[in-house]
Amino acid sequence: MKPSAAETAALLALIVQNAAEIETVICADLDETLPGSDPLLAETLRHALLSGGKRLRPLLTVLCSRLCGGQDSREQMLLAAAFEYLHTATLIHDDVLDHADSRRGKESVVSRYGLPAAILSGDWLHARSMRLIGRLAGPEALEIFSDAAAGMADGEFIQMRHVANPTVTEAQYFAVIDKKTAGLIRAACAVGALHGQGSPDQVAALALYGKKIGRAFQIADDLLDYLGDERETGKKTCNDLLEGKMTLPLIHALNKAGLHERDQLFLIVQEGRSLSASCSAVRQLMERLGSFTYCRQRAEEEMAAGLAALDCFAQDWQRDGVNMLRSLAGYVLSRER
Amino acid sequence: MKPSAAETAALLALIVQNAAEIETVICADLDETLPGSDPLLAETLRHALLSGGKRLRPLLTVLCSRLCGGQDSREQMLLAAAFEYLHTATLIHDDVLDHADSRRGKESVVSRYGLPAAILSGDWLHARSMRLIGRLAGPEALEIFSDAAAGMADGEFIQMRHVANPTVTEAQYFAVIDKKTAGLIRAACAVGALHGQGSPDQVAALALYGKKIGRAFQIADDLLDYLGDERETGKKTCNDLLEGKMTLPLIHALNKAGLHERDQLFLIVQEGRSLSASCSAVRQLMERLGSFTYCRQRAEEEMAAGLAALDCFAQDWQRDGVNMLRSLAGYVLSRER
Repeated sequence: MKPSAAETAALLALIVQNAAEIETVICADLDETLPGSDPLLAETLRHALLSGGKRLRPLLTVLCSRLCGGQDSREQMLLAAAFEYLHTATLIHDDVLDHADSRRGKESVVSRYGLPAAILSGDWLHARSMRLIGRLAGPEALEIFSDAAAGMADGEFIQMRHVANPTVTEAQYFAVIDKKTAGLIRAACAVGALHGQGSPDQVAALALYGKKIGRAFQIADDLLDYLGDERETGKKTCNDLLEGKMTLPLIHALNKAGLHERDQLFLIVQEGRSLSASCSAVRQLMERLGSFTYCRQRAEEEMAAGLAALDCFAQDWQRDGVNMLRSLAGYVLSRER
Repeated sequence: MKPSAAETAALLALIVQNAAEIETVICADLDETLPGSDPLLAETLRHALLSGGKRLRPLLTVLCSRLCGGQDSREQMLLAAAFEYLHTATLIHDDVLDHADSRRGKESVVSRYGLPAAILSGDWLHARSMRLIGRLAGPEALEIFSDAAAGMADGEFIQMRHVANPTVTEAQYFAVIDKKTAGLIRAACAVGALHGQGSPDQVAALALYGKKIGRAFQIADDLLDYLGDERETGKKTCNDLLEGKMTLPLIHALNKAGLHERDQLFLIVQEGRSLSASCSAVRQLMERLGSFTYCRQRAEEEMAAGLAALDCFAQDWQRDGVNMLRSLAGYVLSRER
């Protein structure tokens, strides 16, 4: 099931090429849209959008469009870019809520340009993304897209409610990540399929693929928070723990821990930042309780379900496309930052 | 040209009735949409949306739809409600930027529920409004609507740039209010016309009507800031002056003032809040320079241009609708809060 070295190399080349093309399309769209707008708005948008991300969501839109028979075109790339717009809008607003100073190795928008610029540039991107989706992919795509956008806001609310609440269940965790992460990835795949004129079955299959790898992506992210190399990820480990975020490793550990250990974990979750020294102890406990192994298994199960959804694309000309989506899923699971 | 007492009474009755119907539609839409969402999101949305506003934007959508032959329906009301959603989203975010504690006589969302709830509930409303417009009125309407939304964010950026800048011109002032205020009112009229299956000429005529009364509305608002009765408006007078907002009365006064008076005005604008005692002196100066008279004239010119756009609706069955839009324009200009 693991992609070969050659497949991984092909995928990485595709990611790099697609990211460059998406940046080009974004630059052209901003050049076309922004004349007459405020210079600070333009600067803020360029700072936020042209930051060298991997552009995985737009890549999924393109791959899913192709897999349903969609032809490559500037329109297809612009549609894909709309997902980067909305994703970036949520990152800008998230960084306000999290008081985050940096993003992708650069200063965050709120830190560099202030609160008003952060709120308003997010709103601008939101509006622009909706316009592109509605124009390029039609009303059904817009419903999927705007539901994903509303779901992300709702997911943030639920996540805030769950902070430092040690009774949060695995089902509640999945409900949050379905809204916060998997929803937009699912939408990127489904809208790509719609744009490629996929049949309802094909659209549903790719939506399922997107939802499942979105979940795997988030579980991998939550694992990295405990296990990642700080030099690789650029983030401090145990950050989620210190913020009281109820992610899957922690939920599993709370379920499996003995009475005494659970009390200790409760305390750490509820005290938050004041107990930052406990990170390595918690990590050891999670290792012993099998929490990391469990999370890896759950991520692989989600991934397998996602890949199974691709089985309906069985024609010869679809083989390369399916392989690329398989490699991408493997990449998402094994990434180290 | 002034509406008769009977016309005004009919208009007020219509405003009250429409506002009640819009509230009903909003309640039903939230009841339908929010189950499964976070309770705090639901509470925040109800607090922000069900606040007894006049719902002028939705009313314009309904009236313009009817004038083009659109039939009254739940769909038409829901489409109209989308304008209240987007308008409310911008008010919630504006109150964050302005550190405003109250809105429409209630606590503002940011003051009552905090910054994260304010940002996220605004984002949710934004997404929901786009979905409604796209589904109920189609891609052309969505373009008009999302352009208005993007324009409002852009207009805020430009307005921030203009703060305490005494060289701002009348043309720059109109560019800001076209984006910040007139754009959404224009969109409410144009989208209503599209929904009513208006011809391109009819859509353009109602878009022009909306833009012009939107301008008149904003000029009247800017006049009220200097001249309003604090007990009526619920706002302190000269607030714009103290915040360095370059509105039409101030721009006119700066243009007409003698050298010495202009220097004094410059100083007041640039010092802002520290000189709050100067409010009545500035008001007297503006009175003497004819700034208020000039603003009233400009508002009436905009209004007249807006009403002239209605001339193409000359059929018998359209007479009542046209009269209502005329009365509404008069109401907008003469309102005292």
